[in-house]
This record gives sequence, structure tokens and C-alpha cells, in this order.
Amino acid sequence: MCSVLMPRAPLRRVAVTGGTHGNELSGVYLVRHWLQDPSELQRPSFSTTPVLANPAAAAACRRYVDCDLNRAFTCTLLLSRATPDDPYEVTRARELDQLLGPKASGSDQAFDFVLDLHNTTANMGTCLIVNGSHNIFAMHLSHHLKLQFPEVPCRVFLHQPLQSAAPESNTLDSVAKNGMTVELGPQPQGVLRADVFSRMRALVASALDFMELFNQGTAFPAFEMEVYRNLGSEDFPRTEDGDLAGIVHPQLQDRDYEPLQPGAPIFQKFSGEDVRYEGHATVYPIFINEAAYYEKHVAFLRTEKLVISVPPLPALPPPLRVSNPSGTTGPVFPSEQGS
Amino acid sequence: MCSVLMPRAPLRRVAVTGGTHGNELSGVYLVRHWLQDPSELQRPSFSTTPVLANPAAAAACRRYVDCDLNRAFTCTLLLSRATPDDPYEVTRARELDQLLGPKASGSDQAFDFVLDLHNTTANMGTCLIVNGSHNIFAMHLSHHLKLQFPEVPCRVFLHQPLQSAAPESNTLDSVAKNGMTVELGPQPQGVLRADVFSRMRALVASALDFMELFNQGTAFPAFEMEVYRNLGSEDFPRTEDGDLAGIVHPQLQDRDYEPLQPGAPIFQKFSGEDVRYEGHATVYPIFINEAAYYEKHVAFLRTEKLVISVPPLPALPPPLRVSNPSGTTGPVFPSEQGS
Repeated sequence: MCSVLMPRAPLRRVAVTGGTHGNELSGVYLVRHWLQDPSELQRPSFSTTPVLANPAAAAACRRYVDCDLNRAFTCTLLLSRATPDDPYEVTRARELDQLLGPKASGSDQAFDFVLDLHNTTANMGTCLIVNGSHNIFAMHLSHHLKLQFPEVPCRVFLHQPLQSAAPESNTLDSVAKNGMTVELGPQPQGVLRADVFSRMRALVASALDFMELFNQGTAFPAFEMEVYRNLGSEDFPRTEDGDLAGIVHPQLQDRDYEPLQPGAPIFQKFSGEDVRYEGHATVYPIFINEAAYYEKHVAFLRTEKLVISVPPLPALPPPLRVSNPSGTTGPVFPSEQGS
Repeated sequence: MCSVLMPRAPLRRVAVTGGTHGNELSGVYLVRHWLQDPSELQRPSFSTTPVLANPAAAAACRRYVDCDLNRAFTCTLLLSRATPDDPYEVTRARELDQLLGPKASGSDQAFDFVLDLHNTTANMGTCLIVNGSHNIFAMHLSHHLKLQFPEVPCRVFLHQPLQSAAPESNTLDSVAKNGMTVELGPQPQGVLRADVFSRMRALVASALDFMELFNQGTAFPAFEMEVYRNLGSEDFPRTEDGDLAGIVHPQLQDRDYEPLQPGAPIFQKFSGEDVRYEGHATVYPIFINEAAYYEKHVAFLRTEKLVISVPPLPALPPPLRVSNPSGTTGPVFPSEQGS
């Protein structure tokens, strides 16, 4: 994704993607429903396209068929020459890049925003994953969603560590001009819970409402917001052969976003002894005991909790606003994005 | 399984099986641990063998590779001629039948008891699954476990409906002379929760303690016990194409074992409307929203709640007792089982 600060033109094309992981069912079934009946996605000033991102994995109710689709959106993979031996998800990533991007060109062809829908088995509640705090539009969208659902804690996770040489984003939302990932839990893989389903549906509706407000010329003032920033991951204890030697400690399980002090127990070995956290500072674990991360050697992510100041999102200048909120799409403007 | 009422000889060989479904991780990792260190399974009067029932599925962290192993233990499949095209689980069922059975002969070769360890994504707590109330030994074992863990509700589910022509049992525990399934939840597939792991470990220890007491000549008096008996299953609402058209209603989700009245909402369609329960009598749903049952077209099982009288389990006659509790195995007796 190019380094978007804030759009200077209305959003025209938005995609809502589900089933990037085929066993995270809230997004799978919301997208399947919207493909039949897209009425609740419609807004006056822009089009919204529902996309089932990994149809083969969704059909098999598995995270992926050959490899994790949501790690396949690197420019290297997207631009490499296709071969018959390519993993299914690499081929599918190229198709999605054609549909929603292309990522590499930075051209006007790409969708303006991708909202990618996920579930986690961790006790994460509502988590909005933004690449970094420089993404002013996504930060304002997150702030809007937090205010819309005050009864449910809604956290913002900055995925990319604050490093001068942050790694290239490899996730689906990186193919469009801008994007965000919605992560709801806890929900087991292969299960559709009504409470999580309704929450995701309401979040998507509210996100589209925010985009409509922006397109209509609403200005959004500066604010301060609590965020969790990625510091890296912690693996399970392992045997010499690499097998699991223990399990997330009961005192850590389900305590996503809570402070973890140095010396606190984080794992319980099968042999009975505790493993304690050896870091030097308090961290805030998230994605604790996420099923899909066992194979990635991630028992949880360490984050730091920060309060950051987000600058205002100014109103679009009048000539650029969509001035017709009556239900028809407003005039088409050249796409302009800050960098 | 032959129609066991109660054993008339000490148990000599017990198997504890885990990973019959490869993504139900409590049993997978308990068995892997016991294969390394079986000390906690040892009792003076009998041997206990840990068995990883479906190693290929456990390695892939999937329920099964080709088909559900825990439906493959029919005499028809076990006795049919092997072919190169047999599903992996059919081949594996025959191997387990050789190891723990054979089921068909009713001979002395079979293990005396199989305790098969499972997890569910449903809010089932501790559920002990017994084929029927005629299984006096398993009913006494269940009663013992309920008394040992009074702080956690521990329910008994009679799997086979009360019918004169009950279908042949097709589950792993049916290959031995007797058996029981332990089902603990809620736990997502592919996740190992410390609380569930500890509970399963303690239940197995307590079950082995009960067998030891029995072998040593303890008599167990008659009792009355609440049980849930299988009445059949309820499918999700479906589209004409067979796809899901709705989801377990939030008022039913997580309410396993609670009464469901006729007319109460059971599903919420994606279109928004509720589906209500059309039965004529109160039932007690269990396995509500179990991930593995979507493909079996089961949203939940309907059960009836009963209080049944279980006759005493008499002490083994003195010549048959294992009279040496000092740590060595007692004298070997001919195996005798009631019919």
C-alpha cells in the first residue's frame, strides 16, 4: 500500500472482503449473503463490492488450501510469472490484485478502500487492524467505529512496528489504495456465532456510513486515541523436536489487552512447571492462543499501549464533494490520494 | 460392543485414546505427553495404554483426512476386505480394531475398557457419553466422576436412543469390551486451553482410580442419576441449494442442557427473521453449534432429561479380586463379561 495519509477525493469504489481465511465464518457468510442481496451495502455516493476472497478455502472450511492468502500480497509474489505449480492462494492473490488493485502501480485503477473481515479464536472482542498511525483516514474510521459502539470495547491495533524500514505489507487490504482489517472474536474456526455475526454486520454498516459522511463533505476533528502497537511475537515452549511442550497459562488465557508484567506466568508446561515472561517491560498481549498461529510459532503478540494524537481529517473542498445525497452517485472526480 | 451390563472380572487392559478427531487438541496432547511419560496412568491392578487414534489427522490438525474415524467402527467396515482405495480412516479403524478389539468376535482379546477423549466447540462443560443406561459399569464410572468434581457440572448423555432396534454403534469405544467417551467444551478446534486440558487430565486420573477401586473389590451401591437421552438432531435452516440460510439464535447459543420450549426461537435467518422450535414437547439441546456438525447437518441434538435408577455394582467375588495393591499386577483371571 502506498503511504496514504488522507484521501483528497471522494471514495468511489469500496470492497468488503470476507473468507480471506475460509474457516473464519462471519465474513464468509456475510459476503455470501451480500452477493445475493447487496442492498444493505448501498450508499449514495460510492459503490461497495462484496468479495469472497478465498472461495476454495471457504468451500473446504479451512484457513487456506495451500498457503496463507493473507501473507501472499507481496509485490514479489504478485508480479512474478505465473506457473502451473503456483500454490492456489498465490494465483488467487494475483486475481484479487487484478480485481482490487493493482498494488504495484499505485495507479488510479485500484479500489479506494478494502475492509477485510476476519475472526479470531482469541478473546479479542472488536479489534480494528490498521497498518500504522500515518493512515489518518483509517484512524478516523476507527475512531468513528469506537464512538458508534460504546457498549463493546473496540481496540485499534497498529500492525506495523514503528521502524524506519518496516517490512512490506503482505495482507489483502494492501492491494487497494487504502484499507483496514476487522478482527472479531472469540469465535471458533468453522463456527458462526450470532453475536459475532451481528457485530460484524453492524461494524461494516457503520464503516460505510463514515465513508458516506466523508464523501458528503464532513470534516472530522483531531482526537487522541489509545492504540496497541506491535512489538513482535512470543512462541510456545517447544521440545527439541519442535513440538509443543506447554500451553498458554490459565492466568494469561483470555486476557488480551491486559498488562503482562515481567515475571508473570505465560505458559504451563505439560510436565507441570510454569514458564514466566522474561521481558523487561510491561507489554499488552493480543491474539492469545489464536488457533491459526500455532503453525506460525506465535502463542501471542506483544504490544505496547500508547495514546496517540491524530490530526483532523479535513472536509473535502466543495468542488470535490459528492453534492447529491439523493441516492444517485455523484459526479466522478479524479482520484487523488496524499502520499 | 456387546451388551455389557457389568464386568465380573477385574479390568486388565485399559486404553485411553485421544486425537480420534485430530483437531480436538486436549486428547491429542495428553496422549502425546503420556506416550513420553506414562507414569500418571499407572495403577497397581491393570495396565493403561495411551493411543493417538488418528495420527495423520492430528499431524494435519484436522478432524479427519478422508472421513470421520469415529463413524468408521461398524462391523461392516471393519470386516470388509481392505483395498488400496480405502479411506485413510477406514484403514486406521481396522488397525485400532486389531489393537483394541476385535469388536466382531466378542472374544477375550479385546481391551476391557476404552476411554475416548474429545472436545467440542459447544458450551457442554464436562459431558460423559455412554451408549445406554444398560451399561452399568459406565454409569457407575460416570456417577463416580460426578461426585469427584462437584464444582463443575458433569452431565451424562445416553447416546443411543431407547429403541428396540438401536443402530449398531460406530464409535471407537465400541471396539473394546466396554468404553465411554469424554467430551469437554467449549474449546475451539485447533486450540489447547489450559483449563480444559487440566480438567480432562483430572477426569482420566479419576476414571482410572475408579477402575482400581473396582478391581480391589469395592462395591458400589445403587443410585439415581439425571441423564440426557438422545432424541435426534435439528438441522440449520437451508437454502434450496443446501447452503446455510441462518445461524443458531442468540437466545439458544451456549444454552446446552437448558430446556427449549415449543415456539422458542432456535435460528436467526440471514434475512433477519427468526425460526422457532416446532416440536410439541420441551427438549434439552446439546452440542449446540458444534463446528464439526455443520457438515453433518446438525445444528444441535435434541435430548430428553430423565432421572434413572442404576442398580448396584457388586464387589467382585473375593477369588476374583486383585488382592495385591502393592504396585504389582495381581493374578490374571479369565475375562468374564455379562451380556
